[in-house]
Amino acid sequence: MQVFENGVVELEHVKLLEATNDEHGGVIVEMEEPMAPQAFATVLTASMLHWKHQGKRGVWIKLPINLVNLVETAVKAGFWYHHAEPNYLMLVYWIPETANTLPANASHRVGVGAIVLNDKREVLLLVVVEIFPDWGVSSSHGEKSGKFQAIGLWKIPTGIVDEGEDILKAAMREVKEETGIDTEFLEILAFRQSHKSFFGKSSLFFICMLRPLSFDIQKQEQEIEAAQWMPLEEYAAQPFVQKTRLLKYTTELCLAKTNKSYTGFLPHPTTSIFGNRPGYLYLNSQDLSLSNCDD
Amino acid sequence: MQVFENGVVELEHVKLLEATNDEHGGVIVEMEEPMAPQAFATVLTASMLHWKHQGKRGVWIKLPINLVNLVETAVKAGFWYHHAEPNYLMLVYWIPETANTLPANASHRVGVGAIVLNDKREVLLLVVVEIFPDWGVSSSHGEKSGKFQAIGLWKIPTGIVDEGEDILKAAMREVKEETGIDTEFLEILAFRQSHKSFFGKSSLFFICMLRPLSFDIQKQEQEIEAAQWMPLEEYAAQPFVQKTRLLKYTTELCLAKTNKSYTGFLPHPTTSIFGNRPGYLYLNSQDLSLSNCDD
Repeated sequence: MQVFENGVVELEHVKLLEATNDEHGGVIVEMEEPMAPQAFATVLTASMLHWKHQGKRGVWIKLPINLVNLVETAVKAGFWYHHAEPNYLMLVYWIPETANTLPANASHRVGVGAIVLNDKREVLLLVVVEIFPDWGVSSSHGEKSGKFQAIGLWKIPTGIVDEGEDILKAAMREVKEETGIDTEFLEILAFRQSHKSFFGKSSLFFICMLRPLSFDIQKQEQEIEAAQWMPLEEYAAQPFVQKTRLLKYTTELCLAKTNKSYTGFLPHPTTSIFGNRPGYLYLNSQDLSLSNCDD
Repeated sequence: MQVFENGVVELEHVKLLEATNDEHGGVIVEMEEPMAPQAFATVLTASMLHWKHQGKRGVWIKLPINLVNLVETAVKAGFWYHHAEPNYLMLVYWIPETANTLPANASHRVGVGAIVLNDKREVLLLVVVEIFPDWGVSSSHGEKSGKFQAIGLWKIPTGIVDEGEDILKAAMREVKEETGIDTEFLEILAFRQSHKSFFGKSSLFFICMLRPLSFDIQKQEQEIEAAQWMPLEEYAAQPFVQKTRLLKYTTELCLAKTNKSYTGFLPHPTTSIFGNRPGYLYLNSQDLSLSNCDD
């Protein structure tokens, strides 16, 4: 077998794409070097025949964005899109006659809201400059004049959980980034699932309880207009909070928590069933104490 | 303004792409009709100038897979990938000089495991034919012979939560699909977050408790080899369950639940802060009773 620089291997005088086996009877091709679309079409056709002969199942082709000129060739060969990130596109093909068992694409964004409560029953709140477009009158040319309106509202720190990031770490990170406050993660009080957050994707939002380890607020980001410790009762009494059920419930959870009459889910480090992939199991540990979760 | 069939509009003799405004000061172009790449390049350049002049921010281009020949043109114009589904690719561009505030791509797959317990303290279990490749010795030609091994293990029904699907509905659906049993959703006992489930994406797995509404098992899917009601203690005593912490914890949760000494999170229908986007808020309702969650 001869291996060429551009990721092509030659097998009995037939050039094939270099591929690695995945754990499910399929192959993964990670294209890295530029190739002319016609040359890619030829080597892809030969490779597909080879993999079919081998009894392979799913075929994955990862194309970095700089090899965008090969996307059309792959689609013409029968591949379809599986997922994409800013710098690459993953295409896939299923060789067997049977229905495919390919893993589904990621379907949910995950967000966190951090309730940081100090010993004086004060909660850490922010005013964020949020931008809402206020579309003007459409002109006869179809143009729209937009003016942007900044509204202020005292709210808890929130943010998005990054791919590969633990929920508890995301909550602590967001608080630190937005206010400079160091925290200890306590528990998840509740969470909410909703749909169509953007382009059909769903979302999960975790309401977390944290204990502050520092107290001097230092605003860290441009979009934050103000940050302060506010007495919990004062926050809860705000008209906007009172009339917005989701915010009202959040403050009720928080009040119940401070009265020690509410138990949420605590994180326990665990590995997966086959011993790999560390992660956290969140459960009601007041009702069920698990001795040393990890091996 | 003149509108052409292929989604191009003419504005003061300059052809532009037809776009709709999004809620964040950007525009969305949904390409539907075929166009030559060169024509697309020309109209895209003119459109970008127009949107920049208008003070637009994010520009989204949704290309169905049959318009794959336009992907390269968009990337050459500075667009990058945002996300993809089997039948389309979403590209994006950020016009302002400031850092982009575009929404992140979905980062998590969401799964459910369903503990269905009947009045006789029996739990609904399955044997699934799971396929693990057992790679043979690599030949001198780089070929690998694969043989597939089927292993059996009594497990609870599990599955993936579809985009746009409620967790509680996914749990009930999986049980119905796999065993024919109708159920009522009770609560979420615990959940686990882990990472790198495939291609860098993270996953959330919710362990749900359900009550059966019917009792005659009817296997529904090919990959299910057997299904039965098994006494909970017998299931918990299996060596594989005992030595696998995550399964052991699950059975402990289940035993605690049957002894009425464990409270998980119950779903409450709620709308989002601005009154739209229905969803479910999951919380410990034994500790905090929320009157009529929805307006």
